[in-house]
Amino acid sequence: MVTLAPDHPLRDGRTVDAPLLRAARGDRPAHRPVWFMRQAGRSLPEYRELRRNVAMLDACLDPALAAEITLQPVRRHGVDAAVFFSDIVVPPLLAGVGVRIVEGRGPVFDRPVRTRDDVRALPPLHADALQPIRETVGIVAAELGDVPVIGFGGAPFTLASYLVEGGPSKDQQRARAMMHADPEAWSALMTWCADVTTAFLQSQIAGGASVVQLFDSWAGSLSRADYERSVLPFSQRILTAVEPLGAPRIHFGLGTAGFLDLVADAGAEVIGVDWRLPLDEAARLVPGHPLQGNIDTALLAAPREVLHAHVADVLRRGDAAPAHIVNLGHGVPPDTDPGVLTDLVEVVHAAE
Amino acid sequence: MVTLAPDHPLRDGRTVDAPLLRAARGDRPAHRPVWFMRQAGRSLPEYRELRRNVAMLDACLDPALAAEITLQPVRRHGVDAAVFFSDIVVPPLLAGVGVRIVEGRGPVFDRPVRTRDDVRALPPLHADALQPIRETVGIVAAELGDVPVIGFGGAPFTLASYLVEGGPSKDQQRARAMMHADPEAWSALMTWCADVTTAFLQSQIAGGASVVQLFDSWAGSLSRADYERSVLPFSQRILTAVEPLGAPRIHFGLGTAGFLDLVADAGAEVIGVDWRLPLDEAARLVPGHPLQGNIDTALLAAPREVLHAHVADVLRRGDAAPAHIVNLGHGVPPDTDPGVLTDLVEVVHAAE
Repeated sequence: MVTLAPDHPLRDGRTVDAPLLRAARGDRPAHRPVWFMRQAGRSLPEYRELRRNVAMLDACLDPALAAEITLQPVRRHGVDAAVFFSDIVVPPLLAGVGVRIVEGRGPVFDRPVRTRDDVRALPPLHADALQPIRETVGIVAAELGDVPVIGFGGAPFTLASYLVEGGPSKDQQRARAMMHADPEAWSALMTWCADVTTAFLQSQIAGGASVVQLFDSWAGSLSRADYERSVLPFSQRILTAVEPLGAPRIHFGLGTAGFLDLVADAGAEVIGVDWRLPLDEAARLVPGHPLQGNIDTALLAAPREVLHAHVADVLRRGDAAPAHIVNLGHGVPPDTDPGVLTDLVEVVHAAE
Repeated sequence: MVTLAPDHPLRDGRTVDAPLLRAARGDRPAHRPVWFMRQAGRSLPEYRELRRNVAMLDACLDPALAAEITLQPVRRHGVDAAVFFSDIVVPPLLAGVGVRIVEGRGPVFDRPVRTRDDVRALPPLHADALQPIRETVGIVAAELGDVPVIGFGGAPFTLASYLVEGGPSKDQQRARAMMHADPEAWSALMTWCADVTTAFLQSQIAGGASVVQLFDSWAGSLSRADYERSVLPFSQRILTAVEPLGAPRIHFGLGTAGFLDLVADAGAEVIGVDWRLPLDEAARLVPGHPLQGNIDTALLAAPREVLHAHVADVLRRGDAAPAHIVNLGHGVPPDTDPGVLTDLVEVVHAAE
């Protein structure tokens, strides 16, 4: 049973009036909160410096280092939240599944999970393995005071796709094949993914996160029917399990325009939207939900006036939602000029 | 000015009653026509044998070899059409642009096209360079008699994305950046792409193709507004230019559910649909259009009864369109068991 310490930001009230928390509750704070998915990472020279001789997953599991990386973009850009620096495969790794991150390719598992026996062999994730996670978030939360830390976890479909494919893939063919060919194995795998990610998110909240985001990178390869039947129940399982801890939940997927209402059905308060769906249309699809998004990352390289006109349009359309957490429509591309992001934060904070 | 010889299949009537041509006109032939995107290629052992010591683009430009590769799946599977074996980058290659296909990665250009000067430097495509294309299609059409050959071309957005990025990319960030940052350069590049692909398709029709398909692999990274403003007019330019030759036009894109009506506005008779959008819903989005698709390639690896139930569902939903050309929702995955495809053709031909 995960409980929050009396000095947790959600219990002592430190972050309760932060613009991000207010927007997540559907209020309209004095300025719109803004943060960037993947704000900690390769776009920052100070990150590249720290990571010079450290493998990605080693960095994720070194509390002092991961905390420093998590803090870097808050210091540099003045964003309204830190987002825990980690990776979707950290929960399987901590459960004992063999995985490494290959430069320029992504996570690669030693043994893809393809059969019922493979699924059955997946080890449980023990709470004590999550100690470095709690510790990292604890360092960040203590450092930031009233600026909230966002916990991060991969949605079961995206994590299961990596496990089945053995690494990144186009269209997640093998994972979607298992979904149809062996629904029982699929269900067992998705339950395992949901449960390790639940534990991962709970440990981040216990450590001091005030908000969590569930991230479904590959949802866009699914039809609406497949999402509803074979994915939604497992994302719901995570969001329901973390609800009692009281941290508002953000749910973001790429390519979810065709089933955004189902994404909302999974239970999160805030719905993240990618760059393809205008926020005013998203607001019609999921009425009552605060929205997060959705500046097109392709525009980050455009001339300043083109980018600013686009941001103004995003803010205007975001007014159609009860509240708007400004973000990109996708993670920060590694070659982004960090100055452009710092400038964006100023622009958003100065907006009406 | 491209004209058709008197013995062209579209003039001597050889292919006029082929199920594919009848369905493309909106009729209901005695059986539903079926073919598979990327049916010629790596899933066939006889293809892998032929390609053993030949580079991809060399194979595309050797008329005897390319014709044989094009014919292989028709002989093996008994599909209702051949589709010209080629690559989206053949038109730039024939115009003199440096490009090669890197195994396991895709097309890679010697020099990405990033600036106005880069666009201005793109060479024109001379008609005589297209001689091997006409010749290949001529061999195939002569061999097949009343079985139609489908011509193939890449839509301007997909081709421009490869040129700007310099190769395959996720989300086509650089191409979409140019679209917004320098609309003039973008328009010039898209016009060039449209014009070389028009010449490519015209040469295939002149050679003996009875139908053409325009293929927009990356359209799904676009918002509806970007598609409408910066992409549609250029796809339209191709489809309008080839219209007078009288070959029915199929227009297929991946991830186009959010703007399928705009895809239809580009002018093709037949609209291709990927696996994510059920055909009955597509029929509501583009009323009056014959539809092509959309068996989920992930199901090709599922048990026979699961695949067959899916195919029955696709056929049932396809009844909502005036006519239905059966296909996959995407290209044949290289690891597909070819026996599964042969079996599918039988199942479709035996269906009510």
